[in-house]
Amino acid sequence: MTESTATALSSLSPAELEAFLETQRTAYAALKDRGLTLDLTRGKPSVEQLDLSNELLSLPRGHKDASGTDVRNYGGLSGITELRQMFADLLWVETEQVVAGGNSSLTMMHDCLVQLLLHGAPDSPRPWGQEETVKFVCPVPGYDRHFTMLASYGIEMLTVPMNDDGPDVAAVRELVKDPAVKGMWIVPTYANPSGSTCSQEVASALASMETAAPDFRIFWDNAYAFHHLTEDEAKSADIITLASGSGHPNRPIMFASTSKITFAGSGVAFLAASKANVDWYLGHQQFASIGPDKVNQLRHVQFFGTADGVREHMRKHREILGPKFAAVDEALTSALAGREVATWSKPSGGYFVNLDVLDGTASRVVELAKGAGIALTPAGASFPLGHDPRDRNIRLAPSFPVLDEVEAAMAGVATCVLLAAAEKLAGVRG
Amino acid sequence: MTESTATALSSLSPAELEAFLETQRTAYAALKDRGLTLDLTRGKPSVEQLDLSNELLSLPRGHKDASGTDVRNYGGLSGITELRQMFADLLWVETEQVVAGGNSSLTMMHDCLVQLLLHGAPDSPRPWGQEETVKFVCPVPGYDRHFTMLASYGIEMLTVPMNDDGPDVAAVRELVKDPAVKGMWIVPTYANPSGSTCSQEVASALASMETAAPDFRIFWDNAYAFHHLTEDEAKSADIITLASGSGHPNRPIMFASTSKITFAGSGVAFLAASKANVDWYLGHQQFASIGPDKVNQLRHVQFFGTADGVREHMRKHREILGPKFAAVDEALTSALAGREVATWSKPSGGYFVNLDVLDGTASRVVELAKGAGIALTPAGASFPLGHDPRDRNIRLAPSFPVLDEVEAAMAGVATCVLLAAAEKLAGVRG
Repeated sequence: MTESTATALSSLSPAELEAFLETQRTAYAALKDRGLTLDLTRGKPSVEQLDLSNELLSLPRGHKDASGTDVRNYGGLSGITELRQMFADLLWVETEQVVAGGNSSLTMMHDCLVQLLLHGAPDSPRPWGQEETVKFVCPVPGYDRHFTMLASYGIEMLTVPMNDDGPDVAAVRELVKDPAVKGMWIVPTYANPSGSTCSQEVASALASMETAAPDFRIFWDNAYAFHHLTEDEAKSADIITLASGSGHPNRPIMFASTSKITFAGSGVAFLAASKANVDWYLGHQQFASIGPDKVNQLRHVQFFGTADGVREHMRKHREILGPKFAAVDEALTSALAGREVATWSKPSGGYFVNLDVLDGTASRVVELAKGAGIALTPAGASFPLGHDPRDRNIRLAPSFPVLDEVEAAMAGVATCVLLAAAEKLAGVRG
Repeated sequence: MTESTATALSSLSPAELEAFLETQRTAYAALKDRGLTLDLTRGKPSVEQLDLSNELLSLPRGHKDASGTDVRNYGGLSGITELRQMFADLLWVETEQVVAGGNSSLTMMHDCLVQLLLHGAPDSPRPWGQEETVKFVCPVPGYDRHFTMLASYGIEMLTVPMNDDGPDVAAVRELVKDPAVKGMWIVPTYANPSGSTCSQEVASALASMETAAPDFRIFWDNAYAFHHLTEDEAKSADIITLASGSGHPNRPIMFASTSKITFAGSGVAFLAASKANVDWYLGHQQFASIGPDKVNQLRHVQFFGTADGVREHMRKHREILGPKFAAVDEALTSALAGREVATWSKPSGGYFVNLDVLDGTASRVVELAKGAGIALTPAGASFPLGHDPRDRNIRLAPSFPVLDEVEAAMAGVATCVLLAAAEKLAGVRG
């Protein structure tokens, strides 16, 4: 944050605050008059990013994989070997520990949850669906679709803070003493939305901690493993080795996908885990699928060429995304520095900026932004059941709009943050 | 069947039978000496059929659907509209009643079953998984993967005969008086493996019958709706209109796919049902998917052009498949006519020939064929839990091998049928 001469809003005299409020009202009225239509709601790749992968539209060349299998036909539940090898390399696991699936890692997570509910894991006393209660540890803020999936099955969600180095381990350790706590979510690298990356130490603690449930599972959603925004590239903690080394090889199930590497809706999703977990997953999926789309998998193999091809491709994304994230930070710094009404993350990877505004004003900020034509993710979305107890958290997703739209939107958001804060401090509503 | 001078095996004298057995042993030894490696196990399209769709490998042109949506990005859970329209036309339903999904209709069936187990339908007293017992009506012979899916969830399977015009309605009516009977499978058109097509009358009876379960569901797997082998094209019964007209609009859920139209592993699957069922399906799938592969859907739209394009394309499949099915019939007729040891279907569509051999000899035929390098689907596969109570049913899948392989394989199978029958009648084992 740049040095600023602006005064903290809480230090203003009543008259100064009244004047400030009027200024923000005027600024907001001007913002509304601009008639913007901007959308920062979802972590979608932009058109420019999608264009990076347009070669996929005319691939694959031929229709056989490296083993000579005709990829057009049925079969091959675990995916084609050369794509599994490529992502085994990238995810730091063995090929036999990787399944290359369909177009949605969310679907693979859901598959696992359903299998746990209806069958249980080999180390489960009974199917999770036959337990009185099932609870999950949910670091917050977190990914809304993780929470809505659990909610749809009535699974109780217990929150722990997401710190700069990952989930609060002491809080997690306390919760997992309850045998009803069967699992936890985590986005370990460039987390949605905080941007923080789980350290090796935190991962090690999660891998080795005692849990009352013998079949405790960590849903390790490594959605942003390769999604660096700077040259300082985070290395994902090697949870599978850590878990194996501490005697809990089946605890983590890792997920990843090319959704934010190639085409968001038409990529390839991956599951990586112990061989026993992979066998368990495929053992049930054999009844539910004729195998993944191998043509699309071959398409991706040819497009990337090698694991390094994936890394190289991600640098092109970085060149497009980097300036947008910089624009978010600049707009917020320029308008809010010194005002002490907001803090925000400066992520070095991933898709989101986490904006924490004055307690009790997040909903109002989103409402104001909507009134000015700027769609933001609903306040509270990053919390289970959409409930942010402090009503302060807003997830900003600057990837989809073009750069000048990001700039315009964020200037507008900053105005809304200031207006909402001034209203709150002045004890009035707009 | 052509007129034949061959004598029924059961009419042979003991000495004649002994001589016949010796002849067949010699024929079988000669068959083994040929060292064949042929596979009639699965209903897979042949290379020649897959080649019909190779244009897909360099499609789509562009990346926007008719509404201007960028198909490369996230979203659109129900699939792109123009593909839904095309298959609504083909399946004789409204566009809003169709979901275009991923690459596997089996997955959509499984999704529905899982939703019923974990959530139930709107007309369910409780989730099916909370019932003491769940039972399904299973016409036999039927599709093995339908049965293995149910078995994986411990669902009890009650068989009814599959007649020439569909399931035995009287038997079904009796079974559905039990409120634990929650659903039934049917492959209504060119059934797997019998080849029979459910008549409008039978469909009407199934749609209108009283069921004790208020949430009874018919899983109407219309996998072969367009897969004609002759110019006499069967029309699938319009189960959705029939069910709606008889006051049970939510009873049927139809499934279809392009797996045996374009690429078996990389096609598009469809679900068609009442609007309420579609809403129920999507209402849960929203938590489990980021949407289907819309690029692949656009690829299919461009490849087919129109619904008539699909019909035209199917005629090319017919030209390839027709001679193979004729070869099966010729080989069986030539070797078995008059012997009274086997009957077989002469399907006018679909992917299978249903061969019923002498009671108690199907396993032996499959074993003998294996010994001669001819892989057949395991005996009993078309029955729940793999158990054919008469051990007589064999499913033949002649689509994948080239024509002369089909001829060679079927001549070999006929030899095995005769040898097994002679062994049985002579009271000996090879």
